[in-house]
Amino acid sequence: MTKRIFTFRRGAADRTADAAEALGLKGANLALLAALDLPVPPGFTVSTSAWRQVSAQSDMPAEVRAEISAAIKWLEEVTGRQFDGDCPLLLAIRTSARVPMPGLAETVLDLGLNDRTVERVAAELGDLSFAFRSYGRFIEAFSALVYNVDPADFEEIADDERQLRNWTGDEPRTLEEWRSLIARYLAFVEDEVGEALPQTPLEQLYRAIEACFATWRRPVARTFRLAHGIPENAGVAVTVHAMVFNERDEKSGTGRAISRDLSTGQPRLTGEFTPGARDRSQIGGDGKVLDLRALAHPDQRSLFPGDIEALADHVRRLEAHVGDAVEVTFMVGDSELVLLQSGVAKRTAPEAVRVAVRLVGEGLIDEEEAVLRIDPASLEQLLHPTIEHTDDLLPLGKGMPAAPGAATGEIVFSAEAAQAYAAEGRPVILVRTETFPEDIHGMHVADGVVTIRGGTTSHAAVVARGIGKPCVTGAGWLRINRAEGALYASERVLREGDWITIDGSTGEIIQGRASLRPPGLSGDFASLMDFADAARRMRVRTNAETPSEARAARAFGAEGIGLCRTEHMFFDGNRIQVMREMILATDEAGRRAALDRLLPMQRSDFVELFEIMAGQPVTIRLLDPPLHEFLPKGEGEIEDTARQLGIDRAVLCQRIIALKEMNPMLGHRGVRLAISYPEIVETQARAIFEAAIEAGARAGAAVVPEILLPLVSLRKEVDFVRKRIDQVAATVMAERGWKVDYLVGTMIELPRAAVQADTLAEAADFMSVGTNDLTQTVFGISRDDSANFLATYERQGILGRDPFQSVDVEGVGELIALAVEKARRTRPSIAMGVCGEQGGDPASIDFFERVGIDYVSCSPFRVPIARLAAAQSAIRAARLAQSRPRPRG
Amino acid sequence: MTKRIFTFRRGAADRTADAAEALGLKGANLALLAALDLPVPPGFTVSTSAWRQVSAQSDMPAEVRAEISAAIKWLEEVTGRQFDGDCPLLLAIRTSARVPMPGLAETVLDLGLNDRTVERVAAELGDLSFAFRSYGRFIEAFSALVYNVDPADFEEIADDERQLRNWTGDEPRTLEEWRSLIARYLAFVEDEVGEALPQTPLEQLYRAIEACFATWRRPVARTFRLAHGIPENAGVAVTVHAMVFNERDEKSGTGRAISRDLSTGQPRLTGEFTPGARDRSQIGGDGKVLDLRALAHPDQRSLFPGDIEALADHVRRLEAHVGDAVEVTFMVGDSELVLLQSGVAKRTAPEAVRVAVRLVGEGLIDEEEAVLRIDPASLEQLLHPTIEHTDDLLPLGKGMPAAPGAATGEIVFSAEAAQAYAAEGRPVILVRTETFPEDIHGMHVADGVVTIRGGTTSHAAVVARGIGKPCVTGAGWLRINRAEGALYASERVLREGDWITIDGSTGEIIQGRASLRPPGLSGDFASLMDFADAARRMRVRTNAETPSEARAARAFGAEGIGLCRTEHMFFDGNRIQVMREMILATDEAGRRAALDRLLPMQRSDFVELFEIMAGQPVTIRLLDPPLHEFLPKGEGEIEDTARQLGIDRAVLCQRIIALKEMNPMLGHRGVRLAISYPEIVETQARAIFEAAIEAGARAGAAVVPEILLPLVSLRKEVDFVRKRIDQVAATVMAERGWKVDYLVGTMIELPRAAVQADTLAEAADFMSVGTNDLTQTVFGISRDDSANFLATYERQGILGRDPFQSVDVEGVGELIALAVEKARRTRPSIAMGVCGEQGGDPASIDFFERVGIDYVSCSPFRVPIARLAAAQSAIRAARLAQSRPRPRG
Repeated sequence: MTKRIFTFRRGAADRTADAAEALGLKGANLALLAALDLPVPPGFTVSTSAWRQVSAQSDMPAEVRAEISAAIKWLEEVTGRQFDGDCPLLLAIRTSARVPMPGLAETVLDLGLNDRTVERVAAELGDLSFAFRSYGRFIEAFSALVYNVDPADFEEIADDERQLRNWTGDEPRTLEEWRSLIARYLAFVEDEVGEALPQTPLEQLYRAIEACFATWRRPVARTFRLAHGIPENAGVAVTVHAMVFNERDEKSGTGRAISRDLSTGQPRLTGEFTPGARDRSQIGGDGKVLDLRALAHPDQRSLFPGDIEALADHVRRLEAHVGDAVEVTFMVGDSELVLLQSGVAKRTAPEAVRVAVRLVGEGLIDEEEAVLRIDPASLEQLLHPTIEHTDDLLPLGKGMPAAPGAATGEIVFSAEAAQAYAAEGRPVILVRTETFPEDIHGMHVADGVVTIRGGTTSHAAVVARGIGKPCVTGAGWLRINRAEGALYASERVLREGDWITIDGSTGEIIQGRASLRPPGLSGDFASLMDFADAARRMRVRTNAETPSEARAARAFGAEGIGLCRTEHMFFDGNRIQVMREMILATDEAGRRAALDRLLPMQRSDFVELFEIMAGQPVTIRLLDPPLHEFLPKGEGEIEDTARQLGIDRAVLCQRIIALKEMNPMLGHRGVRLAISYPEIVETQARAIFEAAIEAGARAGAAVVPEILLPLVSLRKEVDFVRKRIDQVAATVMAERGWKVDYLVGTMIELPRAAVQADTLAEAADFMSVGTNDLTQTVFGISRDDSANFLATYERQGILGRDPFQSVDVEGVGELIALAVEKARRTRPSIAMGVCGEQGGDPASIDFFERVGIDYVSCSPFRVPIARLAAAQSAIRAARLAQSRPRPRG
Repeated sequence: MTKRIFTFRRGAADRTADAAEALGLKGANLALLAALDLPVPPGFTVSTSAWRQVSAQSDMPAEVRAEISAAIKWLEEVTGRQFDGDCPLLLAIRTSARVPMPGLAETVLDLGLNDRTVERVAAELGDLSFAFRSYGRFIEAFSALVYNVDPADFEEIADDERQLRNWTGDEPRTLEEWRSLIARYLAFVEDEVGEALPQTPLEQLYRAIEACFATWRRPVARTFRLAHGIPENAGVAVTVHAMVFNERDEKSGTGRAISRDLSTGQPRLTGEFTPGARDRSQIGGDGKVLDLRALAHPDQRSLFPGDIEALADHVRRLEAHVGDAVEVTFMVGDSELVLLQSGVAKRTAPEAVRVAVRLVGEGLIDEEEAVLRIDPASLEQLLHPTIEHTDDLLPLGKGMPAAPGAATGEIVFSAEAAQAYAAEGRPVILVRTETFPEDIHGMHVADGVVTIRGGTTSHAAVVARGIGKPCVTGAGWLRINRAEGALYASERVLREGDWITIDGSTGEIIQGRASLRPPGLSGDFASLMDFADAARRMRVRTNAETPSEARAARAFGAEGIGLCRTEHMFFDGNRIQVMREMILATDEAGRRAALDRLLPMQRSDFVELFEIMAGQPVTIRLLDPPLHEFLPKGEGEIEDTARQLGIDRAVLCQRIIALKEMNPMLGHRGVRLAISYPEIVETQARAIFEAAIEAGARAGAAVVPEILLPLVSLRKEVDFVRKRIDQVAATVMAERGWKVDYLVGTMIELPRAAVQADTLAEAADFMSVGTNDLTQTVFGISRDDSANFLATYERQGILGRDPFQSVDVEGVGELIALAVEKARRTRPSIAMGVCGEQGGDPASIDFFERVGIDYVSCSPFRVPIARLAAAQSAIRAARLAQSRPRPRG
């Protein structure tokens, strides 16, 4: 026979292998605490197997009733109290499933009270009001759960009694008054639902358990299960335990204890305690929440009604068992401490890193375990700049830390001004009394946001966190005078255009332009990264075009540049004009003349990147976008360009129209440009080789550039371009008398390239999967146009997550796996990278680890995330391999 | 030892398995004719294995010389003549490789002539001039081949002699004059090249063969080999045979004989004969080309110097051997007939069909063989409309049949006028004196073209054939007066806008608007199609939206509609305005109101298609293009639309801008529209089901509509739309009380759909591969924009053929094969079709046969082509399977 009821008391608990599934989270947790010999209220859990039996029938089967009745007998013995006896046993009824879930029954307290026991409890405690108040609340909770009676109806009855009997306070004072009120409650229930509320505690319990079970079928719960793939027959469990009167007097109370000081990572009892309140609705209402750190001090120990040393010891033992910082919910009733719930302590990302590294230091967990404990995406919180604190800073005050990161800029008071300043390249801090949706375009261009009103969930705070802008809210001592264009801060006055500096991680606001310290890897963060690197198989490179990006990425541990997009180099300053000259030239000679002027600019860019990345590989992608992207757009710009280049405006317009494309994403771009205009390839290759020689000579070490061809679909495209690159290499090497090693590789960003990776691998030294374009072509979705329908797709549940953010394993992923497998068939040692946006996405990185990608390349700030994610994937893969039975022979 | 020299004479030829490879086309052909006991000049072929030996060394090896010398001995015996003897043996030297190829040596005639033999030949024939003229020509040809001497140099010498010796005619008359001329020729050669032209015939032969062999290395030949993948060491063979004096007198001549009358297909000697001419340069020059049909008549038989009955017998025997209509090149020398070359008779597409069907009737070949004999693409020539000849037609005359097909339309005299008329939907015939590149845009919009000048290779003719427009050229009796806007045709005058009718297959021009008979399948063509259908596995459907397309397709044997694009139905007449109302509606109610007005229009379209296709499946694709394609484009049209729909112009513009897309090909279209606006699907589904019931009731037979979802990439897209369709089906069936069977299928036109075909097959009843969009996404190429670079790709040899015309087997094809395999894994019996342009391309059909596609769907006019191609593929596949060794056990 399947066991249906599981008992627990300190030091002993019925065991089961699938505790959460059978007992629900609450039951399983209490069983664990009991088994660890930690103090818990004694009780039992009516398991999900009982639920299955009950829910299959209309009434609770007799054998289940018998088992519950037997469990009550056991509980009576353990507690020395009796259901409906002189020393009455009162119970709390808690419902839980294997995961937290909405829609299930609320806790029912004080079950066992009836017209008889209420007076015995009153006598035992010497507290008439507490006993009757509890009875009244029980009737309300039971009726709501079992009969769906609205609690407001009882409020009306109470109001009526108050007038009728002329109560002096909020509730009855005399036994008569209490009896009258309860009698009306019970009469109302009977009247309303056609049956009397059971006076037998055992009957109360049966009905309560049945009702708790039935909440599994509530629509909210059902919707949640459908959305989260929880089987319909998983069911709920009901945990029944002896009441703890934690809200009665100064010898009672409720608290949350944590095994560590999360801000330092050190083992120490932290958390808070709320002393026993007279009324559940008033918990913490009088603000009397005490800090456990303070209570642990010998001077203050008396303020805690239980044994605080024992509490510290309990959490310590629990932490040792779990192997992680834990938090527990505890109660004190009549000076006796019990634990009700435990779990790993919730923490912020910096806290998590600190605790994990500390646990390794203490030998509680190993490095791999520490690596697995941190959510890679959470590291973003550690990667914000901070204010460089110097003596000359003029603090303006401290508001709420609403969105992390520091920023400095000129004050503006409107979104319009923010845009105007930003258009001139001036960094701005948008200061508003509060923000509204029409301010969002200003927030987007601002470097930081300050609001005078609002907290950490205000409009400004939510939007700022969403778009990654530092934000300080609730700076109530500031006052904006729009008419004067002034910001009053106590005695000081700042004007629009004056500089301020803010730190959204701390709430600080500082007058003037403070230096910002870029985020870096140090301390525990650096240790964690070391652990990760030791476990990692995949390399992590960065996507970087500018020296500052390259430097940031190196600081974050990037192992080279996996993607340097050269087109961005052509938009800078006056380069765009030379680029336009090249595009508008009518013959190869004209194009070559313009390209010759671009050559030294590109070369110097490359020299700088090569020097920063000394010793690391640098992958440079040849020009990719269609040429029309470089041409002027609006009327004015066209006019200007025509004048500057000395061309007829009509001719320019004609050329713009000729280059226009219906579907530029699928147009004349990538390697197709290289084939139409080989002179572009030749110039780029020359710039790369000359830079490699120059940087190599200066550094004394050879640089190995990797040249990447975009949008390849045919082997012959690679052959064609490679031939030109090889020719340029030979020429430059002959001119300079210096040998350069280099690689020529191809992007895998079209389905055809994936399918033909074996053939392409014959001609390519390496390959880099471009997940953005590959996702666009595999799905046939243009990112630029997808907003119109992808929102509907997500709303309708047709697409779970944005396939551009995280790799679509079944579709795009299958083609990537195919490409890796095919390419290695031809060239087993070929390096396969990923350089799309997904290179920094943990879920995607996990997939790339599984299919054997050699390296990912992501934006500089995602490099630590990728390092951690890659390490986690490698550890998981190794564990999976170990857990598999080895093939024989 | 490898055999190097192969002899042949009537009734006996040295055999070799790989005749064409070893002996070249000419040698192999003569060996075949000889082996069949047909009359040939005796001779031998110096094979490619000799070529390999000779070309490996600088001089001809002694053993090869010895073998050639032995072969000459044999030939002397066979002919009873001798090299350099009293009865001189003269030879023709012909060079050939295993395929026809440019750059190889020209034929050298009369080898063996020298200062001695020339006079013996003169004496033997009694024809001094013929002998010496032949000698002179031999010296020229030999010097050109062996020494690279320019033949024009000999012309100069002859001119000089003419003046010096006062010749009375074009050439010498007396022996003295001839001797003097030849002596100067020989002296010139010796002077020019530093050695005397060999007087020993055997030496002449060695040198000639060496030189013929060397032509394999000529650049033209090498380029050709590279382009056609012919191995460098394949080599050439040199065929040497006794001279036939076919150009000497009335007892000689040359001709081409065919075994059948290709215009009827009946067995009968046809072809032509050119009686012996005095001079090779004058062959046919006097126009005396005789028709063999006439010569076979007893009255005219004496005009043929040989035995014409024997000739007829020869070609008959050859045809029986080859199993196809053959043509031979023959010569008559001194009344003796020899065959020199044979092959299957060249023919037009109608002739090919006629002959193949006739051969089946005669039991010479079986039906499968007949099917394999016809190039499917050539059937296009049979699929043009013709003029319905009635008594009241007014013929204007007959020009050259320059591009096939008949057309009728209004006369215009310029490309501009053609465009203006066409823009108004008026059919036009462009009449020009001749055409130039600037006329092409006019030809594109014209229904037919007439030019006064030019023949069948004029600009107009070439362009018209290329773009498939009927064209008559060389209508020299017409005269255009542009100033008057008039066309003078003898006594008649036609004006711009007057109707004419032309037939480019016959050259006819007719005044007025004649009825055109649409092409149809009848007679031999129908028989051939029957043969094909018997052999075919794949079904052939058509892409059709209009009743006329559907009717034409049925007439061509389409087995249902494989693709009915519903969007085209929304452009007609006032529907576009209702469609625009739907698109511009701001809510679902507005859209539904417009859709309700479109419903009856669509329903009546479907009823008509269902009735025409009675008994066949009809696949209807839901709305596919992005909505902006239906909106007005230019300023004027926007203005009009705003007025007609009563919307503010600015609002309309705003909506147009909002719907604009960067990459519409990858945008909000296909099934994405169905998910954003389910009401569109519901209306279309209702129209389909109501039409199915209506047509079914009328026809008394149930129609099974197949509903096709475009641009699917996710299983859930199919689920979402299918659910709506099923709901509508249930509603309509309940309303009408009539059951409709229907299928819901999905396009496979995105790489993700191909990769996920197994999952999609769980939800789809059938699948249809859309090769156009699949090719666009697999290659990442927009057809609209590809012109800019695909031309360069073809010029650079990067892309062999347009992947949109013919399936890219390695890339797109691999994904199609994967889709078929995966879909069948889930649903083994699922029907897989192809409905892109490639559904009518023979090479693609061959691929589709191999991967197990069930049906192709193509434009109506390509249906017969697809039927034939599918049959050929099936036959080839069956033969391949038979030829494979069967697996044991």
